[in-house]
Order: sequence, then structure tokens, then C-alpha cells
Amino acid sequence: MKKKILFGMDIGGTNTVYGLVDENGMLIDHSGFKTNKKPQIDAYVKIIVEELTAMYKKYSADYELVGIGIGAPNGNYFTGSIKLPPNIPWIKDLNLVRELKKYFDVPIVLTNDANAMAYGEMIFGAAKGAKDIIVITLGTGLGSGIIVNGKIVYGYEGIAGELGHVCVVPYGRHCACGKDGCLETYASASGIKRTVFQLIAEHDGKSVFNKITFDRLTSKMISEAALDGDKIAFEAFEYTGNLLGLALANASLITQPEVIVLLGGLAKAGDLIFRPTIKSFEEYLLPLYRNKIKIIASTLKNDSAAIMGAAALVWNEMDRK
Amino acid sequence: MKKKILFGMDIGGTNTVYGLVDENGMLIDHSGFKTNKKPQIDAYVKIIVEELTAMYKKYSADYELVGIGIGAPNGNYFTGSIKLPPNIPWIKDLNLVRELKKYFDVPIVLTNDANAMAYGEMIFGAAKGAKDIIVITLGTGLGSGIIVNGKIVYGYEGIAGELGHVCVVPYGRHCACGKDGCLETYASASGIKRTVFQLIAEHDGKSVFNKITFDRLTSKMISEAALDGDKIAFEAFEYTGNLLGLALANASLITQPEVIVLLGGLAKAGDLIFRPTIKSFEEYLLPLYRNKIKIIASTLKNDSAAIMGAAALVWNEMDRK
Repeated sequence: MKKKILFGMDIGGTNTVYGLVDENGMLIDHSGFKTNKKPQIDAYVKIIVEELTAMYKKYSADYELVGIGIGAPNGNYFTGSIKLPPNIPWIKDLNLVRELKKYFDVPIVLTNDANAMAYGEMIFGAAKGAKDIIVITLGTGLGSGIIVNGKIVYGYEGIAGELGHVCVVPYGRHCACGKDGCLETYASASGIKRTVFQLIAEHDGKSVFNKITFDRLTSKMISEAALDGDKIAFEAFEYTGNLLGLALANASLITQPEVIVLLGGLAKAGDLIFRPTIKSFEEYLLPLYRNKIKIIASTLKNDSAAIMGAAALVWNEMDRK
Repeated sequence: MKKKILFGMDIGGTNTVYGLVDENGMLIDHSGFKTNKKPQIDAYVKIIVEELTAMYKKYSADYELVGIGIGAPNGNYFTGSIKLPPNIPWIKDLNLVRELKKYFDVPIVLTNDANAMAYGEMIFGAAKGAKDIIVITLGTGLGSGIIVNGKIVYGYEGIAGELGHVCVVPYGRHCACGKDGCLETYASASGIKRTVFQLIAEHDGKSVFNKITFDRLTSKMISEAALDGDKIAFEAFEYTGNLLGLALANASLITQPEVIVLLGGLAKAGDLIFRPTIKSFEEYLLPLYRNKIKIIASTLKNDSAAIMGAAALVWNEMDRK
């Protein structure tokens, strides 16, 4: 009898990555391609079908494909649709589940990319064993996946978990979503760049960033400068952590998680971001909540967290039925 | 064969109320007593046992008692304990489930009072039919019960759902919990009193409240004054609604509810509080979330919502097993 296997896939603004995961959660094989390689719906679906088919062919003698799990920006679990993903402007409304169903006669599950990552962290990663979890990806923007009692919080239409757009500073920074003061305009790789420029404006102080344009600045440069003793860079992490801690405390007062996992570029700054975040987080919690909720770094590679999480979601679906 | 029946009970700072609820959700009988009648743990438990026993006796020929559901401030679903409830200072840590188990050999479930009300609104009240719900009680403080996919969000230790203590104004008003800027210091009967005094201080304007002490002021007087055209009173509702709308939008971005139910004294002000709350709420939501989530008033009487909700929780528990 053939062993069971399934595909996990993560669609990002830059890369589309996928892999075959077995029943034990082992990543058997993985690959990927540039999301913009074929910037048209039909061509994009075609390349996915071709790539998955080719990879599965290598293993089909020993394995039976039993499902496909997909994480995608603005992916809707209920409808199977990807709608106006901010980083992939050529996708307006792609029902990827329906499209792939034409080629693969297996259960196909699609959800928000941050939800898939959160699920991956719960099953395989830093939050293993916990059932109440918040996972935050600090990339160009801020993504979040919320897990309550072992289940992803989808909300009544499947689009819950937008912590990046809670307002932390009323009448604050303008966000691409159209609102002002959203968390992701502060706590993200692009947010901390804005903070550096704000601090230069406010302090008129000496900083290595006085000689760098906004376009060239990266969050990695900010963390390197902070470690080198640059005051503005250090202050930028304090400012970011303070607001991130506030938002995480507010969210924790709603779902009381056991673990909060931070991943993505900005989380790689380690102590520089974790220390001020945890300090502020504890201050904004109710006394009864304090010194219990762990804020920790992801232990999975970014790519594999999403692939594994998307795959694990399908196993979970099959268990339910 | 006897019909099944169970007790629902709601423990408040002022009153302890209880009633018998049948399988169809009919409240067969109800009563209550002052919570402070016997301000000692043992005496309090004794009076509960006596009252429940006496009421059940009247119906025991036709009905079999199959469970007891209790809503209480700071009630913990997992442990069965009521810990340091802010409005009942003589209770430090009362494991009411364990105490009542000595007298009643039936399943006993205890949870936070706001959770019980939220469950009541879902099963019998304004949120009937919905599975993703936020229920807010605007009393002296602000209580909240969050329901995700038909289940109360308890959090990993059973104390989730403290929306009253999310920070909406960093470094804002001091709260009894020890923190600053908590939602309940603004959006509650006592919060709106503070707002009236803040507005008098800021505007030095003419208001009926210029002649009233803080201690005598009530939220009912503020809503009557607003309806009579008092500018400060009207402004106080705008200010309250603005911050309540912000906090509800932030919470909705996390759980995406279908319905938000407001109950309690301040909610009785109707349009005065609902209009500014809804306006601010919609503004702080992501565009994708707008004009879908209903904010409505409770259709249950305060007392019966909690009794019925606590009872319904037990039916739910028994269904699970």
C-alpha cells in the first residue's frame, strides 16, 4: 500500500514555494518559483499545476497524493479565494481552490498565509504543544494568525486576524489600507524605517542614517547600526517594541494566548526588538495575566513554516471528517 | 419519566440571582438575594444551597435537576474558582464549583459573568443564529464575552475576554486595575461621568452639570441632559462612542464577529451611544470589514440573560460529552 503524502504551498509577493509533506510531518521535497514569473491568472495557475504535477511524479510510485494545503495573502478559508492581495497587484480575485480542483481530485484547503504559518508553528514549531497562540510575521507588513483552543480563528467570513491594522496611534501614520495609525505602519520592516526618519526629524542628532536615503535603508541596516551603538537606531527599536508590546497586550486580553511567536525579518533582530516588546507587553497586561505569556522567536525557517503549516491544516481537515 | 431541568445563576456585586431553566430554554422560576446578605464565604455558600434546594423542591415531583450553570465576576471556567472579583471584596478565592458539588451531584459549570451573558445572547438573545459574537456589558465597569465559531473564548488559563482593560489611550486615565488608559475608564457608566468632568474642565462651558457633584452624577442623568440639549452631555457620548468604536474595531480585526451586542446601563442611552460608536467603529475597520458587522442592543433583560446563558452553557457541556 502506498504511503500518504500532500502538498503544502505558500504564495508570497516574491516567491511561490511548495513541498511534499508526509504523514509524519517530514518535508520530502520542496521547490518554488517567482510569483511574478507569469503575472496573469491563467498562466500562474498553469505553472502551479505543472510544477506540482512534475514534483509528485517523482514520488508517485511510493506515495499517494491525498491533499493540497495553501497559504496565501488575503486567502479566504471559506471561499477558497485570494482577493486583492496587497503584494500581488495582478491578482484581483483568484479562486485557486476551484481552479486546482480541475486538475487534482483531492481535498484542497486555502487560508491566509499568516494562518498557515501559525498552524505550522503550533504543529511543528516554537508553539508546539500550546493550543492558544498568536503568531506575528514582521515582514514588509505585519501579518497575524490567531489560534484559540487549537483552532485558527477565521471569523464569520474567513478574514479574521488582521492585527497589522489595529489602530495603535489614533490619527497616526498613514497606512496603505487607507486608515491612519495601523500597527503595521510602526511594527514592520517598513515601519521601523519610518521611525528612523521620524527620529532624525525630531532629534536632529548624529546618526549613520543621516547619510542614507529612505529607499536604500533596510531593517537589517538598522539592527546592525543599533548593535554598533547608533542611538537613533537603538531608539527606533525601543519605539517599535513599545507599540508592538501594547498591541500584543491588547490582543492577549481578548484571547489570552499561552505563546506569542514572532517571525520575519524584523524578528531576526533578536533582543533589540524582543526586549522592548516584552517590557511594554507586560506593562500593558492586566496584573492577573502578567509573567505567564511567552513571547518567543520562531524555530522554523520562514518558507518551511508556511509549507508545513498549510500541509498540516489539510491533515487536520481530514481528521475532522 | 421526569423532565430535565437545570439552574442558571448570576453572581453580581449587588445581587445574586438564579432560576430554573428547562430543556426548551424556558425560565420556569427565578429568584435572588443581596450578594452582601452574608458577606462570608461559608455563609454565602450556605444561603445558595438553601435557596436552590428550596426552589428545586417545588418542582422535583415533575423535574429532575441535571446541572447548574454559574456566571460570576472573575469566574474561571477551568478551575471553577471566583478570584478577587472587583465588586465583591470579601471573596478572595472561592471555588464555588467544588463547594456546591458537596451538595448537588450534577455537572456544575462556572464562568465569567460576561461570558455567561454572551452565551445567553447567542442562544436566546440578540445574537441568536450567529457563531462569531462579541458581547459588551456597559455597567459600572466594562465586561466582555467573546464567542468564536460558537464557542466562548476562555484562553489558556480561562481568563480571556478582558476588553475593559485594553489600552485605548496610552498614558490615559488611571484605572482601578493599576494600569492607565483602560477602555473601561472611558466606556462605562463611571467612565462617562469622568468624561463629563473632563469636558467641564476643558470647556468651562454652560452645563446643567456645573451644579452637580461627581458623587451624585449618574449616567442616566447624562443621557437625559443630552436629550434635553445639554452640549457637554451630548459631547460626552460622542467622546465615549469614539473610543468604544475604536476598541470594538480593533477587537473585530482579531476575531471578525458577525454581531456585537451592547447591554447594561449605558447601552440604554440608545442612539446617543450607538450612533457615535458605530460611526467610529466603521472608520477604524479595514475597508474589507466595513458595513457588515452589526452593533446592536441586547433583547434580553440583564438578569435573565445571565441566568439563561449560564444554564445554556451546561446544556452545551452535556452535548459535548
